[in-house]
Order: sequence, then structure tokens, then C-alpha cells
Amino acid sequence: MNHQIRRTTTRLADDRELIYFDDSEPYVSGGATRRLDDPRPLGDDGGAGADRAAAGHAPVPEGPEMRFDVLTGEWIPLAAHRMNRTFLPPANACPLCPATPGSDYSDGEIPDTAYDVVVFENRFPSFASVPGTAPDTEWSLDGEALWPVRPAFGRCEVVCFTDRHDAAFAALSPQRVRTVIEAWADRTTALAELDGVEQVFCFENRGREIGVTLNHPHGQIYGYPFVTPRTAALLRQSEAHHARTGRKLLTDVLEAERRAGTRVVLETPYWTAYVPAAARWPVEVHLAPNRDVPDLPALTDAERDDLAIAYLELLRRLDLFFVSPDGTPVPLPYIAGWHQAPVREGRDLARLHLQVFSVLRAAGKLKYLAGSESGMGAWVSDTTPERIAARLRELAP
Amino acid sequence: MNHQIRRTTTRLADDRELIYFDDSEPYVSGGATRRLDDPRPLGDDGGAGADRAAAGHAPVPEGPEMRFDVLTGEWIPLAAHRMNRTFLPPANACPLCPATPGSDYSDGEIPDTAYDVVVFENRFPSFASVPGTAPDTEWSLDGEALWPVRPAFGRCEVVCFTDRHDAAFAALSPQRVRTVIEAWADRTTALAELDGVEQVFCFENRGREIGVTLNHPHGQIYGYPFVTPRTAALLRQSEAHHARTGRKLLTDVLEAERRAGTRVVLETPYWTAYVPAAARWPVEVHLAPNRDVPDLPALTDAERDDLAIAYLELLRRLDLFFVSPDGTPVPLPYIAGWHQAPVREGRDLARLHLQVFSVLRAAGKLKYLAGSESGMGAWVSDTTPERIAARLRELAP
Repeated sequence: MNHQIRRTTTRLADDRELIYFDDSEPYVSGGATRRLDDPRPLGDDGGAGADRAAAGHAPVPEGPEMRFDVLTGEWIPLAAHRMNRTFLPPANACPLCPATPGSDYSDGEIPDTAYDVVVFENRFPSFASVPGTAPDTEWSLDGEALWPVRPAFGRCEVVCFTDRHDAAFAALSPQRVRTVIEAWADRTTALAELDGVEQVFCFENRGREIGVTLNHPHGQIYGYPFVTPRTAALLRQSEAHHARTGRKLLTDVLEAERRAGTRVVLETPYWTAYVPAAARWPVEVHLAPNRDVPDLPALTDAERDDLAIAYLELLRRLDLFFVSPDGTPVPLPYIAGWHQAPVREGRDLARLHLQVFSVLRAAGKLKYLAGSESGMGAWVSDTTPERIAARLRELAP
Repeated sequence: MNHQIRRTTTRLADDRELIYFDDSEPYVSGGATRRLDDPRPLGDDGGAGADRAAAGHAPVPEGPEMRFDVLTGEWIPLAAHRMNRTFLPPANACPLCPATPGSDYSDGEIPDTAYDVVVFENRFPSFASVPGTAPDTEWSLDGEALWPVRPAFGRCEVVCFTDRHDAAFAALSPQRVRTVIEAWADRTTALAELDGVEQVFCFENRGREIGVTLNHPHGQIYGYPFVTPRTAALLRQSEAHHARTGRKLLTDVLEAERRAGTRVVLETPYWTAYVPAAARWPVEVHLAPNRDVPDLPALTDAERDDLAIAYLELLRRLDLFFVSPDGTPVPLPYIAGWHQAPVREGRDLARLHLQVFSVLRAAGKLKYLAGSESGMGAWVSDTTPERIAARLRELAP
């Protein structure tokens, strides 16, 4: 069915964009407008550009920069200004809760007193556009050709899934999840249109164990100025597979998983969840559309409706995955990320899928990324994909 | 100077090799021989092979397996047997402490009652050889060509830096560090000679914050059956640089760092420490020999003597890097890993260097690897390399 949304765009006092996505009448939010009297101080960049200028080097563009790591071939943004970001504030000072009627909004990000789903530009972004600076401006660190530098151009947004501080994504109604899907698709399209954005990543970090600094249910959206390393590796693999077989790698993976069956966790009319054959995390599952789709905006209404159901069922089982010694389930800290086709590169070979994974390897026990993983990028799994899948199947309704 | 070592090889009751490296007369260890009466149970593999056999599939070689991750092009060993490994035992049951005179050794790994430095095969290895199985034996998971599987062949060793449970690497004497260097070089040569080992990695994980399960000062050595992803990326970059310039990438990086000077932390006659231009960790420093050297065994005696001094000075400063609010320094949790030339591939382009880094971004604050880093492999630094270097220079004697 067509999901009715009221989309209202406004701007915060520091000119950041904020967009409400309301899904039920009477539409609860969207009435608040730009607050020119927002009393909060704006952050300065505090980054490397300032250091460099102070050191007497040639002037470089304002704003955060990213440096090319010649040892790995990856771009590393330097977001030193993020060191001061808000860290686990008390619930009554949560910046993601709606404003209290009559308040001066001095602690919060959201001007209105209620909302369904809201998206706004991150106040502590890893990537940001700098007016008057082209995304592909490039200079050399210390005048050395080995070390190209560019503005850390791009966009970072926050998505609040609900205005209820103590809820969780898994506790949302299918209708609200459907609205989140609309917001993800909307932002994927919008960010892809920004000059210089090469890839859009919608993700959620859930749980203090993975460093979440705000408990209010929320996710993030990054518009990267490059194709990320994981996607670059996937495209390399996909190109090699296509050259060998004439086929799309992720389609063949899905078909092989369905044939094998041993790692399939759930199947709905339009979606399949499976633990990948070489899963590296203690808990890991991929959720893929049965139809070849490059990204979220390409999903049909029926696929989006079905996704809301499938994803909620998957999250329900993940929160039952581990049980503490007294028999109570341990809500799973997880990272959930949407792998979408990049904006330009490799769109014909990429295929949408959601990757959900956890660093928890048992109730109260984390998998740490130590010497082999962090030093060498060489992973060792502490379990088997078949064991993860068996547990997730055992939790079916 | 030539550093005198007494090297004594023995075997544990379960046939694991153990090697003492003693550096001072009277040599304190090496008297204990193979203990055929070791009462400890041997671990079973408990891994995927057993699952697969139980599921009625064709028999596969015994022992842990590794699967090819077709999405990334990386091998992922499944070490499910490691789930049961020893976790932070009390000091009086430390398996890395020397045996107590008259004890039955039932808790410990080390048969002798004192030692300088000792290396032994890990009882919970991620990689291990399986008698009668060739390292390159390959089969297909579920009969699918997409999913090659091999034995997780290789070798994992533990290095105890001292028999003092409450010491730290940074508290060792230069003479003892020199002995550790001898042990690293010895094991690099020995593991490289094992059929199928492609890369040798000597590393130390220090601190509970990165998941260290035993407090006794120790490191590890992995003999991998593949070139690790980080090294593969470095070789790709080095090949491209060589094709473009005819020069060795890491030599040019060291020369550029010395020219720029802003990130150089310390210089000794044979070694230079610098924060790399695109450092991604909150604290990161590389220590490289001034001479082109592929690996630890290729170091001269003079370079080894000087390394002991340089590394101890670097560790001293790292332990002063962060200060808690009451003014006391915070011992830095760190990962220190030796990047060496692989056994076969790219030896002419690789260059030895030590990478020391930390997940601590302030006293009591960890950098977590969340959606961008763990999901997309896309790093965001919370600081700048110049700030890290300035702090490390400020701590010079």
C-alpha cells in the first residue's frame, strides 16, 4: 500500500536542515519554524586546518579535512571537533527528545513538542560541506605528493526513530518502521544529489557496548565523499565474479544461500535473511530483497511494507539471542547498516542488503578487535555461521 | 654487541613446543623436560568440521577450518574452540607464571620455576597444523564454488616477556627487551619455514580495554596461511608507487616524515618514530629502522641493541600520554604489532616497521568502532596526527 507521509522541512538556528516525517493524522509535528533566537553556541571546526594555519603554512580551505592514507589507499577524515560531543546526558536533557512546551529549547535539537520520525544535520559531523569550497579541492600535506589532502566534504545526518526516549527500534510499530524506511529512502536520494557525495550509508548503532553516546532511539546517515573500503572490496569481488560468470555476485550469493538453506533465518514474500557463509562477527545476519535492487529508493511499496515486518521480526529474535545466567534475555548491542549501490561507481553490480551484527559473543562478553583484527585486518570468528543461524531459527514464532 | 642467549626447546605433555630464551647466567630455566604426566585435558576442536560431519556432509579434514569471504576476498578462520579460553584468572592461578616448586603444574603452561623469556604454542590457537593434511587442501562449503574452505592451517604462539606477573613490557630492562627481540626474530624465521605459512606477525595486546584475558605480560605470534588484508593493501599501494616512481613506498614515507619533522617523535642512531600523516587511531605511532630492512631477522646486532632502547623510550612516553583528572598518568591500553615482509610475496617492496596504537581517546574514554568503521571500513579520526606527535615530543626526557 502507499504509505502516507507528511514531510516538513525547516532549519535550526545555526542553519542546519531538519525534516519531519509524520505518518498519522493529526500530524503531530512540523509546526515549528526556524528559531533565529537559538541560544546555543555554534561549534568551531577546531581541526587540522587551524593547526596548519597557525604553523605558518599556506592557507587551506576552512573546515575539517581528510587525508589520503598512502599505506592503505583510504581517506581518513580528521574530525577533532567531535571530541566535545554530547556523551550520555541524563534523560531530562536528551537533545533528541521533543521540546518541552514553553521551554527555550536550549538543550534540545528538535523544535517541536512531538514528532513521529525526524532527520536533521549532525551538529558534530565527520563530513560537512564548506561554502565556497569545491569537494574535489586538493592540496598536499607538508608539500609532499605522498600525502594528498581534501576537505572532508559530505553530509552527516541524525534520524530519530521515535520521540519516546526509552523505546527501541524493535519496539516500533510496523507503520512507524515504514516511516523510517521512507525517511531512509528520501535521504538516500537527497544526499546522492549533493555534488561530491559518492555513497550514502544509513545505519543504527545500538547499545553502550559499542559506544553509543545517546540512548534515545536514533540512527545516522552518512553521505561519504568516496566509495567506502568495504564497498570498494565488494565491487572488486563483484567485478571479478562478473568477468568470470557474467552474473551478479550478490544475486548468486542469495541464490546459493537459499539452495543450501542451512544459514537461512527467515523468508517473507519479498525478503530473505541469512547468516553469510563466512560471517566474521559473533552474531551476524544479512537481510536482502529477493528482487535485484540497487538501493532503498528503488524498493516498491510492497517491498517496503514487507521490510518493516521482516526487520521487526529479525530484531525481535536478536534481542532474545543471548540469555543471562538468571534466564533473562540480554538486549543485543548491534550495528545495523544498509549496503547500497554507490552514487556513480558500480551501480550495475551492487545490490541492496542490510547487515546486522554484534560484538557480543556471550551474555556479558564482548569480542574485542585486537592485534590480528585491528593491526592486520585479519579476522578470526569465535563461532560458526551455522550456529548463529540455528539459534536465530530456534527463536522463530 | 652480540647478545648471548641460551635457547632451550622442550615439549609440553600435549606435544606443544615450548622454547626458553635465557639471557643471564646462571641460566634460570630450561631444565624442565617434557612432562608426560601433564594432567590437563586436551581441547577438542569443537569447530565447524564437527558440525559439518554431524550434518551428514562429506567428510572434511579434521581441525578448524577457514572460509573464503567472497564479499571481501578475505579468509575467515572459524575458531569456535577459543570460546572456552581462560579469562582473567586470579594471579595465583596464572597459566603464564612459572611453576611453583613441588607443584603438579596443573594450572600453568610453563614447566620450569623461573624463566627470562619463553615462547610456546597457544593452547587455544586460531591457526594450527593438522597432521596428514596439506595446508592447501580445499573443498567447497555446501558444494558451492562461491565458498571455498581450507584448513585453518598455521601456527599461534604465546611469548611471555618476563616471569614477573605484575610487570609490564615498559618495565623490562633493555637487556630483557633485547632477548624478546631475539625471540621474535627466532620465531619469525622458524614460522616462515613452516610449509604454508605466508606471513609472520609478532604483536602485543596490552590492557583490559582491548580484551586482554591474561594480565601477565605477554605477546603473541601468528603464522598466517595468507597475506593479511592490511599487508595486502600496503603491497598494492607499494606496487603502484614503485610503478610510478621506481622507489620503495615505505622508504619514501620515512624520508618525507623526516623532512617534514612535525610528526617525528624520536630519533636514535638506527630508528625513527613518527606519527603517520594519516593516523586513524586516537594514539598511533610507527617505529621504523633507518635502513631498508624486510623483517626482524634481518636486523643487525647494533640495530637490535638500539631498538631495545628506542622502544622502551616510546613505551615510557605512551604510558604518560593521558592523565586522569587527579593528575596521575593512565597506563595506555595498546596494540603493538610488527609489520614484516611476507614470507614469499612482495618481499622486495615491504619494509619492517612497528605500529603501536590505542583505542583510548582520553582518560577513561574509548574510541569505539561503530557503523562507519565496522560496517563500512571507513575511519574517522577524532584527533590530528600533529597533536599526537606534539604530546609525545612534550614527554621527551
